[in-house]
Amino acid sequence: MAVFTRVSEADIAAWLANYSLGTLLELQGIPAGIENTNYFVTTTNGRFVLTLFEKLTADDLPFFLNLMAHLARHGIPCPCPVADKQNRFLGELNGKPACIVSRLSGKSVTQPTTAQCAAVGAMLGQMHSAGQSFGEQMLNPRGSAWRAEAAQQVRRFLPPQDAVLLAGEVEFHATHPLAGIPRGVIHADLFRDNVLMEGERVGGLIDFYFACTGKLLYDVAITVNDWCMTPEGKLDAGHTRALLNAYHAARPLTAAEADLWPIALRVAALRFWISRLYDLHLPREGDIVHAHNPDQFKRILQNHIASPNPPWL
Amino acid sequence: MAVFTRVSEADIAAWLANYSLGTLLELQGIPAGIENTNYFVTTTNGRFVLTLFEKLTADDLPFFLNLMAHLARHGIPCPCPVADKQNRFLGELNGKPACIVSRLSGKSVTQPTTAQCAAVGAMLGQMHSAGQSFGEQMLNPRGSAWRAEAAQQVRRFLPPQDAVLLAGEVEFHATHPLAGIPRGVIHADLFRDNVLMEGERVGGLIDFYFACTGKLLYDVAITVNDWCMTPEGKLDAGHTRALLNAYHAARPLTAAEADLWPIALRVAALRFWISRLYDLHLPREGDIVHAHNPDQFKRILQNHIASPNPPWL
Repeated sequence: MAVFTRVSEADIAAWLANYSLGTLLELQGIPAGIENTNYFVTTTNGRFVLTLFEKLTADDLPFFLNLMAHLARHGIPCPCPVADKQNRFLGELNGKPACIVSRLSGKSVTQPTTAQCAAVGAMLGQMHSAGQSFGEQMLNPRGSAWRAEAAQQVRRFLPPQDAVLLAGEVEFHATHPLAGIPRGVIHADLFRDNVLMEGERVGGLIDFYFACTGKLLYDVAITVNDWCMTPEGKLDAGHTRALLNAYHAARPLTAAEADLWPIALRVAALRFWISRLYDLHLPREGDIVHAHNPDQFKRILQNHIASPNPPWL
Repeated sequence: MAVFTRVSEADIAAWLANYSLGTLLELQGIPAGIENTNYFVTTTNGRFVLTLFEKLTADDLPFFLNLMAHLARHGIPCPCPVADKQNRFLGELNGKPACIVSRLSGKSVTQPTTAQCAAVGAMLGQMHSAGQSFGEQMLNPRGSAWRAEAAQQVRRFLPPQDAVLLAGEVEFHATHPLAGIPRGVIHADLFRDNVLMEGERVGGLIDFYFACTGKLLYDVAITVNDWCMTPEGKLDAGHTRALLNAYHAARPLTAAEADLWPIALRVAALRFWISRLYDLHLPREGDIVHAHNPDQFKRILQNHIASPNPPWL
């Protein structure tokens, strides 16, 4: 249950007095999520989500909140932060940084259809396109320096052949960076559970707290590695092409991106293999993380290495 | 039919290429409205309204568009302008200034219940409260100078007793202004057809193109004069108190406002009596206005003059 900090109806009613959202009708804890405390909040003005940030600090948050506001301003269905009477997105509730955002409709799917893959590709392209006019920057906290450092730390927990694979991949991507391709704001975590679907339509993109500035193709690879993967950890060619073609129609992919596509898929898989190894072997004190199995991304990575001509447009 | 400028599917599809709204699914003209051309536009990202401004110019529009964006940012359900790839709200389509805004749900009601009057009062209070942090100003184009000038022009069309009533009221309000009470952004036209209801909830406030800076109580009076009026042109005491009490809970009314309430109701009625006389007797060239009957507001004004103790909190 992702309610690490309890919020009572009296707490939220008092907090809402500093907003123009009407009066509280319903408050309900949200079980999903592993980093923040989330509540559904229904007021006379509509349906919202209250988030109390358990780890991110008030210094980190403006980038994420301003980004969501920027994307919503461009018509991307994402949680839109609500400003308080002092015109600020970020407040404090029960000792934690807190914000209230619009609630989107739809629910996540586990077995997407080809049409749903296409819808997600199109929306990711729109998001990248809308993000081009966003003025703020955020370094990728899971970039090459982090990969090298984290790989070093988890290496001792691995059987020898996995340690060799890991070190080799970290070295490969350090010397083969995704250079000379378009950059911008990326979501960096657009897995199936971070997309709300309404049938074949994307109802919402959520959980922007890994968003950063990076290579757009890397974001596409992260998304494809989750949405278009078979249970065996191989890309479904039909799903992949559907996602990429729809993306391409919204934000045209370049020839340089075509060349780097196999490497983008590998580095995207590597990033999640490392973070899952890290969460499994080196959990942070107090983490209530349901650790994902790292082997899934090891297998995806191995399959990408073995298949240097992945499906493209 | 409020489609003064035709927009084809090809026109809008080309125009949408400069937005991050996905691809066009449906385009449908909107019959309501007398000042602008409006279309419902459904894209893969959601439901929107396209407006082509037939009279307002690109100089006038930023105040209105920025105001709607500001209120939406504060969680007020109002049309939220969508920014294009250059981050601008205002574009041009088929030679007219144009924008695309979020589409709200609900529909207007003609015979509001007490609960609906309360919901509108609460939302108006929220809107006034959220408007306090809006930085831009707009003079009321239907203020005292306009009243004096327009009354002068329509006077010759009136029977003598109406001309005397009109001149007397214009003179009365020129010497009894609504002074010393809270100011801010006002909608200035929150009639029943500008509120979308979803049952007893306000789904949306629309048509902000008369919004300006003014006395908040004047906005309340305009709203009450429409929402709480009986067919005989008298205030329904239950509806009026419900609206005012709900407003008061959202934005507390002051003692000075209580004193000025009878005058606020009169001047709000006078404003619409004059504009309806003007539209009837002096229609602008090319106006396709369905002129409302001015007598309704003459009767309301007379009833207000005859009832100096209108319902209050």
